[in-house]
Amino acid sequence: MDFTHLNAQGRALMVDVTEKAVTHRTALAEVTVRCAPETVAAIRSGGVRKGDVLAVAQVAGIQAAKHTWELIPLCHQLPLSGVDIAFELSERGVHITARVRCTGRTGVEMEALTAASAAALTVYDMCKALQKDMEITGLRLLEKTGGKSGDYHAAGTVPASVREGNENA
Amino acid sequence: MDFTHLNAQGRALMVDVTEKAVTHRTALAEVTVRCAPETVAAIRSGGVRKGDVLAVAQVAGIQAAKHTWELIPLCHQLPLSGVDIAFELSERGVHITARVRCTGRTGVEMEALTAASAAALTVYDMCKALQKDMEITGLRLLEKTGGKSGDYHAAGTVPASVREGNENA
Amino acid sequence: MDFTHLNAQGRALMVDVTEKAVTHRTALAEVTVRCAPETVAAIRSGGVRKGDVLAVAQVAGIQAAKHTWELIPLCHQLPLSGVDIAFELSERGVHITARVRCTGRTGVEMEALTAASAAALTVYDMCKALQKDMEITGLRLLEKTGGKSGDYHAAGTVPASVREGNENA
Amino acid sequence: MDFTHLNAQGRALMVDVTEKAVTHRTALAEVTVRCAPETVAAIRSGGVRKGDVLAVAQVAGIQAAKHTWELIPLCHQLPLSGVDIAFELSERGVHITARVRCTGRTGVEMEALTAASAAALTVYDMCKALQKDMEITGLRLLEKTGGKSGDYHAAGTVPASVREGNENA
Amino acid sequence: MDFTHLNAQGRALMVDVTEKAVTHRTALAEVTVRCAPETVAAIRSGGVRKGDVLAVAQVAGIQAAKHTWELIPLCHQLPLSGVDIAFELSERGVHITARVRCTGRTGVEMEALTAASAAALTVYDMCKALQKDMEITGLRLLEKTGGKSGDYHAAGTVPASVREGNENA
Amino acid sequence: MDFTHLNAQGRALMVDVTEKAVTHRTALAEVTVRCAPETVAAIRSGGVRKGDVLAVAQVAGIQAAKHTWELIPLCHQLPLSGVDIAFELSERGVHITARVRCTGRTGVEMEALTAASAAALTVYDMCKALQKDMEITGLRLLEKTGGKSGDYHAAGTVPASVREGNENA
Repeated sequence: MDFTHLNAQGRALMVDVTEKAVTHRTALAEVTVRCAPETVAAIRSGGVRKGDVLAVAQVAGIQAAKHTWELIPLCHQLPLSGVDIAFELSERGVHITARVRCTGRTGVEMEALTAASAAALTVYDMCKALQKDMEITGLRLLEKTGGKSGDYHAAGTVPASVREGNENA
Repeated sequence: MDFTHLNAQGRALMVDVTEKAVTHRTALAEVTVRCAPETVAAIRSGGVRKGDVLAVAQVAGIQAAKHTWELIPLCHQLPLSGVDIAFELSERGVHITARVRCTGRTGVEMEALTAASAAALTVYDMCKALQKDMEITGLRLLEKTGGKSGDYHAAGTVPASVREGNENA
Repeated sequence: MDFTHLNAQGRALMVDVTEKAVTHRTALAEVTVRCAPETVAAIRSGGVRKGDVLAVAQVAGIQAAKHTWELIPLCHQLPLSGVDIAFELSERGVHITARVRCTGRTGVEMEALTAASAAALTVYDMCKALQKDMEITGLRLLEKTGGKSGDYHAAGTVPASVREGNENA
Repeated sequence: MDFTHLNAQGRALMVDVTEKAVTHRTALAEVTVRCAPETVAAIRSGGVRKGDVLAVAQVAGIQAAKHTWELIPLCHQLPLSGVDIAFELSERGVHITARVRCTGRTGVEMEALTAASAAALTVYDMCKALQKDMEITGLRLLEKTGGKSGDYHAAGTVPASVREGNENA
Repeated sequence: MDFTHLNAQGRALMVDVTEKAVTHRTALAEVTVRCAPETVAAIRSGGVRKGDVLAVAQVAGIQAAKHTWELIPLCHQLPLSGVDIAFELSERGVHITARVRCTGRTGVEMEALTAASAAALTVYDMCKALQKDMEITGLRLLEKTGGKSGDYHAAGTVPASVREGNENA
Repeated sequence: MDFTHLNAQGRALMVDVTEKAVTHRTALAEVTVRCAPETVAAIRSGGVRKGDVLAVAQVAGIQAAKHTWELIPLCHQLPLSGVDIAFELSERGVHITARVRCTGRTGVEMEALTAASAAALTVYDMCKALQKDMEITGLRLLEKTGGKSGDYHAAGTVPASVREGNENA
């Protein structure tokens, strides 16, 4: 059992992916911003009128996917071919999924996780005047396809918002 | 109840903080990377030898704090005066806290949350060859001081690693 | 008559503003994306439903203001205290204004112009599948306050959208 | 008639270009900085001596082309294969063209427009101590080649500076 | 004898590499931070305990390689496939080598030189409280492979740390 | 003797400068690009005609100073008040000095060193088609003023180009 990101001296390395094949790769991540029903209601009514909390969070998530190589020190720069982010509001908070696609030499798990994370942080930022004790929780990889190591699907039920891309705001 | 980040047209706004006082401000955030004992053991033994997983995560967290204005669309650019990140390893995973200080016109909650989040994502990135179903969870603001709105302390016990800055790797 | 941005050798210089006073400064810029009535109608109906073209353009403008120091080589990094962007749709296209505020040693004209420019380019980007011959035109400084050189107000009528911040989408 | 940049929920999307072919693509954009003859004369004499206003603007344009993915939220990161910027001085101001080339899955219109825009803003920045009422105008796409949607040539006469790449400074 | 980075007007150009073949390319650069034996001893003892000076420098070097296109105005954005940095401590200072790999249309010399340079600057930054008169010296390209212009090997002995990747901390 | 950049756990820290006074600070750094007389002649003749190698290097140096916080992991973001770069050509190569000014809580040594380094790397980049075995050497801090630790002046003769800002291209 070994870290691929450490070199012979036990220090950080951006691993050489030269020999890996250029294949189509996707990753899907989820996260939840747990917040009070009043906060959800404020997002929702804002959402009906102008949608701005989620609209800003969406842009933040897309931009963050493109900045992953800058934030996560050992990530490669990848030419992402698509990023999409979906939101599902419930009384428990805001559920966010981020799907990233790429044709490249390494996977885009970190891009999907980073996108979901930045979208969640932006929801927090825009709502923090209403509620400070929100919690960002359950950030995990749901699915990964492409590449030699094979596909990955997280255990447990995939939430409806992911299957259908719908949003009940 | 209102969003401070929406303008008269209901769209995104970087709020004007001109009238706010320049005061000393701090924020403390926490997050946990929940992972298998084997993954913790690998980080720990790596940690004993060279410490690189946590060393890289630490640099990532510090850098992310400085990039918050770029990641979270409506955040102000703030001249951070200090960033420190601490790790506590347990059988349940890696607990991370990020403390950010600034003398400025607005708070640094987002900087602390973003730093913690990037450190956690970096731990995930460096360990994902060992375990893909890690979960990043419980990202929340623990403490905030300075500014007109007063100090904030999260409900619940403050974890030991925060009180003492110790780390049992 | 001399360029302040050239040094003794006639080369680029980031001018020393050490001796300038820290004062409150604002700048207001405008630009128009001239497009076909059908394009305006598509933005407007999108706007009624979700507002996303303008919502994305707004975020782009705010982010660009913060990136001005990176885009315009001789600009200083300034801790912007507020950025707001307003849109007015007419049959001739999209009129955009950007207002930037700062307490600092140099003016924020470039930040306002850059914000307006990025918002306009984003409108172009999101509508270019509908119309390729849009034209971004009339980018200029409308107003500047603060600093030793005194206030500046552009000649000509200030458009209604600027006076009132209203938007007829 | 539809926006390609909105997802099923009517929100921003970085469109998936996976299925698009990797082809050679070019784009050419133009813009004019309209300024007083005295300002042109100052640029020109500076230009004869050291060329710095235009030299700095040129670097700004090239750098901005590479930053387009960061400025325009829904743009893809593209590995640009070449960027060139040309200037033509006349008594009416500075005419700027930007040509961008890429071998990739999507066009480089936004890169050319962003490059031209940043070059123009830099001219403004360097000359604003001489004249504040300059206007940046007529930013438009002149030409686009490559990709499935076919080539595009703007209506109207292509200016001499574009055909020949000459510059009369 | 001509500069490839100047256009017909004698100004900066990001050269068009469209016609160049996509091949595997590597570059290796070296640099030395010359410092007092006491400073080396402090790095070394820190290194034995936690390794942080070199660990931080390593991350800085890797990140800088990815930022080369942003720092060196006429460099292309390249999808780096791997970056590795090695350190060798001696009584004369810290010897650093950076190896960069890429499959692309142009070489990665600048990426290797930039990575080595940023790693050296980070060593300086972390040690400057101990010693201010350190000198960063001998930054040069050791080796370059791939591309039409053929391989390049610097004259003189290749240092042991490069041949074997060892490090005597 | 201790590293200020390591926290209680021996890991990287962005040191807290809250208690340090806001004072005016300057730093001056130098570096030399050692190259063949033919390369110097090419830069010089280019310089006489258009000056572009040095003009591009100058912009690169200024921009790099502003990016120091991003490149050097533990550096603070500082609102630089001025950056100037000077070149001196001799038969031995290109001598570069970078002077940075700031009113802030910590010194700007790293900004001056980073600016000089990026300017030198840009000279290398633009001349590497002519000569690959250039060497960037003697990067060091010449002078530092402001702050509690007092002024610093490097031992040895300060070169003429620094004293007078002249340039013999």
